[in-house]
Amino acid sequence: MAEARITTRSKDYAQWYQDVLREAGLAEPAEVVRGCMVIKPHGYAIWEKMQSDLDRRFKATGHQNAYFPLLIPLSFLAKEAQHVEGFAMECAVVTHSGLKAADGKLTLKNELEEPYVVRPTSETIIGHFFAKWIDSYRDLPLLINQWANVMRWELRTRLFLRTGEFLWQEGHTAHATHAEAQEEVRRMLDVYRDFAHEVMALPVLQGVKTDNERFAGAVETTCIEAMMQDGKALQAGTSHDLGQNFGKAFNVTFQNEKGEREHVWQTSWGVSTRLVGAVVMAHSDDDGLVLPPRLAPIHVVIVPIWKSDAEKAATVDAARRIAKELGDDGLSVKVDDRDNLRPGDKYYEWERKGVPVRVEIGPRDLESRSVMIKRRIAPVDANGKAIKEKLAMEGLGVALGKVLDEFQRFLFERALQFRESNTITVDSWKEFCEVFAGEGSKFVYAHWDGTGETEKAIKEATKATIRCLPYPGQGPAAEPGVCIKTGKPSARRVLFAKNY
Amino acid sequence: MAEARITTRSKDYAQWYQDVLREAGLAEPAEVVRGCMVIKPHGYAIWEKMQSDLDRRFKATGHQNAYFPLLIPLSFLAKEAQHVEGFAMECAVVTHSGLKAADGKLTLKNELEEPYVVRPTSETIIGHFFAKWIDSYRDLPLLINQWANVMRWELRTRLFLRTGEFLWQEGHTAHATHAEAQEEVRRMLDVYRDFAHEVMALPVLQGVKTDNERFAGAVETTCIEAMMQDGKALQAGTSHDLGQNFGKAFNVTFQNEKGEREHVWQTSWGVSTRLVGAVVMAHSDDDGLVLPPRLAPIHVVIVPIWKSDAEKAATVDAARRIAKELGDDGLSVKVDDRDNLRPGDKYYEWERKGVPVRVEIGPRDLESRSVMIKRRIAPVDANGKAIKEKLAMEGLGVALGKVLDEFQRFLFERALQFRESNTITVDSWKEFCEVFAGEGSKFVYAHWDGTGETEKAIKEATKATIRCLPYPGQGPAAEPGVCIKTGKPSARRVLFAKNY
Repeated sequence: MAEARITTRSKDYAQWYQDVLREAGLAEPAEVVRGCMVIKPHGYAIWEKMQSDLDRRFKATGHQNAYFPLLIPLSFLAKEAQHVEGFAMECAVVTHSGLKAADGKLTLKNELEEPYVVRPTSETIIGHFFAKWIDSYRDLPLLINQWANVMRWELRTRLFLRTGEFLWQEGHTAHATHAEAQEEVRRMLDVYRDFAHEVMALPVLQGVKTDNERFAGAVETTCIEAMMQDGKALQAGTSHDLGQNFGKAFNVTFQNEKGEREHVWQTSWGVSTRLVGAVVMAHSDDDGLVLPPRLAPIHVVIVPIWKSDAEKAATVDAARRIAKELGDDGLSVKVDDRDNLRPGDKYYEWERKGVPVRVEIGPRDLESRSVMIKRRIAPVDANGKAIKEKLAMEGLGVALGKVLDEFQRFLFERALQFRESNTITVDSWKEFCEVFAGEGSKFVYAHWDGTGETEKAIKEATKATIRCLPYPGQGPAAEPGVCIKTGKPSARRVLFAKNY
Repeated sequence: MAEARITTRSKDYAQWYQDVLREAGLAEPAEVVRGCMVIKPHGYAIWEKMQSDLDRRFKATGHQNAYFPLLIPLSFLAKEAQHVEGFAMECAVVTHSGLKAADGKLTLKNELEEPYVVRPTSETIIGHFFAKWIDSYRDLPLLINQWANVMRWELRTRLFLRTGEFLWQEGHTAHATHAEAQEEVRRMLDVYRDFAHEVMALPVLQGVKTDNERFAGAVETTCIEAMMQDGKALQAGTSHDLGQNFGKAFNVTFQNEKGEREHVWQTSWGVSTRLVGAVVMAHSDDDGLVLPPRLAPIHVVIVPIWKSDAEKAATVDAARRIAKELGDDGLSVKVDDRDNLRPGDKYYEWERKGVPVRVEIGPRDLESRSVMIKRRIAPVDANGKAIKEKLAMEGLGVALGKVLDEFQRFLFERALQFRESNTITVDSWKEFCEVFAGEGSKFVYAHWDGTGETEKAIKEATKATIRCLPYPGQGPAAEPGVCIKTGKPSARRVLFAKNY
């Protein structure tokens, strides 16, 4: 059991990520369905925790869930010119209904009059229904969210981060004024930031995407960007100001208070199962998965330790009693009383699965009415050995609750410190190229002349992209300068990084 | 507002159902996507309540959620002969990836080497992964559930009850022995029955399907069957014993304790958004939607009643304070303080939306520290007028909790009584034909000779189908007799009805 199944981060970061997912049982490639994956129970349980927390936040801000069709008529996609350009290449297209068996093989039966695409996102089909549902300013704002699967067949895929099919939520809202829509865009971006910080323990920067990186059909795309442990950026959520683009394409109008008809102003915003990948990449280590307690399907694993049968009976019994008490305190607990593994093997397995805290109970602990606990990432002693902590059985639930809160904060602070120590300001093209040479990346604030051409030239030369124009207060203060690539004037620095 | 928007049940039951859905805002046809629907917020909120309760029951019986791909390779479907026969005609088929724009029109781009079907159910793709995950008896039982959308294009559709795309859960389990699989089949059918009885307030019968009605690929299909208000049956959930059929088709084997390799024994079981239709059809009336409190997105609506501005301020203030208190007691409460509607119009609207209890607060109620409440279905006085009840403001949450519990029980008892008074035993073919002449239906227990031919002949003659061979204790005691149609011997009566 003790063989090294996980490649180290320093050796091969991409392989390390795959190894962590496999060893923790989070997901695996569905090699028989192009670009798709199977989300295994331990991975799906993390997504469920994300869903439940996000859903509460969406409802608290006045949104309601609904469900729209998976299939979208081809003609709908064509109605918004930029939108179709952005998604056409990645669409899965349904052209037939029914199959017939002939010569032991299945062949297609009925060709559809109009093909459907499997939704890559739902602005078009939802626009169609908004046009039916909205008539007066009294119907606004209309605040809808959908939990759904979507398909985008991209060439390069990576478990959770970029898969042909993925699970997500997509918010779609309609408003009477542009100002209200803009408020909504920011409100939901703030919901995403709060979720990332409070639940994922993942510090994010908020900002605006460049024209090149904008959602196809939006007038402005805002985003949250996180740093992974290789210094690369991961776009963790987006919130789009759609202006009146879809309102016009689908004729979504309302009568305003003066009795005039206007097109609505819309927004859309989404996060996906990609966040599971983000949390894995941000926190895990060479021993496997590390999870923030608020996303951990199992908070605490209890490992009873015995030599004799009598000791086994006593320690397992105590473990179960403690598990019951901790459960009553709201913790999710697993007792590992398997016969066929030694304690060390169990420790190793639960570490790889990212359980935040392990509790050990041996015969001597029973006597002293205490337990030994070990955090998934523990401080080490002078010899580099992880320090275990002794906690009294009395009030263990409260004590472990505090340990989990501390661990949640520790992961956030560690990730924040990592990002800060890998964030630099660069003012020369030479230095910029040096930073992005090789595999690594950092968060680099640099001046840019504001043109798409320069953005592309920088990307071609260095693989670094503009992650966002950070909101005021996020990143360095706005300060005029000259573009790192062209020397043309620039009003402020923007955020560059390689990205997932 | 007071015009009759809902066709009465006695006039046109099918139209009544559509009217109830529309007026309550539960769903509408997605006329641009063949056979599909949009689930609107109020309808989706009911489904969410179902999901949350069922999910808890699945987890309590040891199941874990996971997620498998939407798309299934065509060749997978062909591996189980009966399975493909059952679903081939209804499949939506993905044949292309990508679109290209030419002459202002979108056309298909890349033809796939092997087409995919959009899952009509997931036995095949899950079988493929079970074969990878299961190696030893130690890996069994494997107890998986998936919440997902599926597609089955059928010719005749009806909102919620039968739609091209629907939402559901599908349980998929693998076991070491047939006996264990059979236990699982029954365990989950019991979970469905308990859910129907306790949450949907819907009495159901449990039994076994005939060979003709069996799930394509199963060795036995069990079901729960409910009666709607037109006397027709609605299959509300199924639990299948798959035997080793899929185990053999996908080579899912395990090493048993003796070291021999065997094929696993599998089950699958599912319920869908069809249950939303069932609950609507079972409980609603000519005034609109009626919901059991445990599925009601809003438990209580509070309508303040005022004439003067001072009264408005006082009653709205009291309504909000009470709503807060009820919320703390765990109730979901809406205060309707709209200016532009009279109280009667509000009552009418919330009745159509199925809110179980209405609370009215007028100036005099404030003085007496009490409120008037009206149940969605209330007892009537000698003049046929609904009786309102007076409740003290003090302890209102507890009192309303009791009222909601009573209402939940009332709906179950009413539905049970309706079913019992519309269930008969029939022993002559003439009487059987009379019962099923016209539009109506009853639950009819009658003898049948056990052959598929007779079953089909009965269906062709009367539209009545065998809903199930009821489990012992459900329906009349087993008693030998002669088939109602052929006069051949029969060991017991089976359940006939027209069905949805």
